[in-house]
Amino acid sequence: MPLTVPAWAAPAPGAPLEPITITRRDPGDHDILIEIAYTGICHTDLHHLRSDWGPGIFPLVPGHEITGTVTAVGPAVTRYAVGDRVGVGCLIDSCRRCPACLRGDEQYCARGHTATYNSRDDRGEPNHGGYSTHLVVDERYAVRVPDALPLDRAAPLLCAGVTAYAPLARHGVTAGTRVAVVGLGGVGHLAVRIAHAMGAEVTVLSRSPRKKDDALRLGATALHATSDPEVFEKLAGSFDLILNTVSGDIDLDAHLRLLGLDGTLVGLGVPERPVTFGMFSLLLGRRSVEGSLFGGIAETQRTLDFCARHSVVAETEKVTAAGLNEALGRLGTGDVRYRFVIDAASFASPPATAGR
Amino acid sequence: MPLTVPAWAAPAPGAPLEPITITRRDPGDHDILIEIAYTGICHTDLHHLRSDWGPGIFPLVPGHEITGTVTAVGPAVTRYAVGDRVGVGCLIDSCRRCPACLRGDEQYCARGHTATYNSRDDRGEPNHGGYSTHLVVDERYAVRVPDALPLDRAAPLLCAGVTAYAPLARHGVTAGTRVAVVGLGGVGHLAVRIAHAMGAEVTVLSRSPRKKDDALRLGATALHATSDPEVFEKLAGSFDLILNTVSGDIDLDAHLRLLGLDGTLVGLGVPERPVTFGMFSLLLGRRSVEGSLFGGIAETQRTLDFCARHSVVAETEKVTAAGLNEALGRLGTGDVRYRFVIDAASFASPPATAGR
Repeated sequence: MPLTVPAWAAPAPGAPLEPITITRRDPGDHDILIEIAYTGICHTDLHHLRSDWGPGIFPLVPGHEITGTVTAVGPAVTRYAVGDRVGVGCLIDSCRRCPACLRGDEQYCARGHTATYNSRDDRGEPNHGGYSTHLVVDERYAVRVPDALPLDRAAPLLCAGVTAYAPLARHGVTAGTRVAVVGLGGVGHLAVRIAHAMGAEVTVLSRSPRKKDDALRLGATALHATSDPEVFEKLAGSFDLILNTVSGDIDLDAHLRLLGLDGTLVGLGVPERPVTFGMFSLLLGRRSVEGSLFGGIAETQRTLDFCARHSVVAETEKVTAAGLNEALGRLGTGDVRYRFVIDAASFASPPATAGR
Repeated sequence: MPLTVPAWAAPAPGAPLEPITITRRDPGDHDILIEIAYTGICHTDLHHLRSDWGPGIFPLVPGHEITGTVTAVGPAVTRYAVGDRVGVGCLIDSCRRCPACLRGDEQYCARGHTATYNSRDDRGEPNHGGYSTHLVVDERYAVRVPDALPLDRAAPLLCAGVTAYAPLARHGVTAGTRVAVVGLGGVGHLAVRIAHAMGAEVTVLSRSPRKKDDALRLGATALHATSDPEVFEKLAGSFDLILNTVSGDIDLDAHLRLLGLDGTLVGLGVPERPVTFGMFSLLLGRRSVEGSLFGGIAETQRTLDFCARHSVVAETEKVTAAGLNEALGRLGTGDVRYRFVIDAASFASPPATAGR
């Protein structure tokens, strides 16, 4: 029997979120039912809520940084048991057969991965995200949250964390690697912590110097304000790897010239406008620009395991359903250090302050 | 004693080349004197002659695809002897001490490499290129031309050849690698031959289908005309590596989507305008755009050795000094299959047709 559970949804593009009742599928043979503990508020949620990347499926329940506890398992489930602490990230299904799926890169599934929300399941029903009390998911698309990680501060690892971890691991970041992180936000602050835990020498490049203390506390050796053009002179050729976590326009030529020989700038955000730069900025150092899209399931598990071993968690500000719209508004202006997480228990009943 | 030798030079930006007498330095302890046999006409020569990339040093003697024979050696020379067949490419000096130089990437020398022409030596004297009968160069910056390679058809390997070979080798192209070459010109035709010799499945992407027969003859399995938008639909995700050899604008988004997962587009030409594309084109396949600048000395030697083993040479059209300006004009309009090489003996005396 399908489950009826509370959630918060936007009824239309740009509209505030409001309480709603949604249906979760009856757990199938391979499914687990998760009682959600926390859901992080990702910048991507804002894009989907505004239909920035194409028409969304409304009412839209966002949320793809989900942690919780297994409360029921289907008869064929082998990996998880009731009571297990688990997480769900940006995808909940994929074709499972294409070369990308077979090598654990489900996010690049040839058929297209099934996003955790703003997508449809095989029967055409909308998938709803983690702004809710419960979620049903195939066990293959869940990961285990190690005991060392608190569920609230681990939730952002499911998207922001793996988004930062994947390119750092792929580029072999280790002791002495010179890593720059552009932008100190949800992804950026985790990139600093993870790169630092890998032994890298981490520099934050931020528009203003106001987050300097935070950057140093998170593990960076320096924060340079990119509003100062001299920074680009001084740091020319200084980095092996730059992670660009901002979705606003940056001067790519200036940033590319901060890379040493064979350096790579990895774009993790999605700028609204096309990027542009002169080819000389790449040619004069065999540099490259790469795009990286969160991570596959195995990579997400590796992220959580790494973070557990190295005590890396997100800096979070906890909110309840009643504060959700305000939090989304603040996220839109960058006013969060560094990730909102929603206490999912507050979805259970419409709060008095919601006025309905 | 310095040597006085004939050459052809442009007296000013954009002016036709004319005969001139230049001075080559007296061969020092480590220098070799080369009697030039052939010099390829590279597209770069046009840029320097027009001062496209900054004010040039005039009179300007171009030429950095040089083959010839050693006719004298300095007392400390160990690698070459009189009579040896040698080549000189895009650079004739570098700091020799920076990390790039120490690992054989002299083209990325931290101090800046000394280009073969339109540059100055340590004493501030202009360096003149290969549009001349003789050249003096430190033996470290020459390479050996294997006996299997004819000097005329090997000359273009010194720039165009290594420019194509370096990224193919660096990306581990081997049997079955799916390589696309954008543009069938001086670099492109050698890229096809070299990639084919490495065992790759090579596709040429060209604006029009008119070079199809050539492409197949050079080793490609197909040529697709990019003027047909359906080509981009049909070939989506088809390539592991794309070498972009054209300096004109191409639709980068369309080309990037031809790459499969983790594919790389390597830019070898220098577009006059900045490049631009949407980050989604990289994100949706962990793709990258890379720049690659010819190659170091060791890589150039590897290029010649590889080409000798696999019978790879350039398709050339031989010209004499008298036909130089016409050849440069034709190169500017793309009217060459696929590389002009100048018979350097024709520089020895001002030809009657030069009218001086």
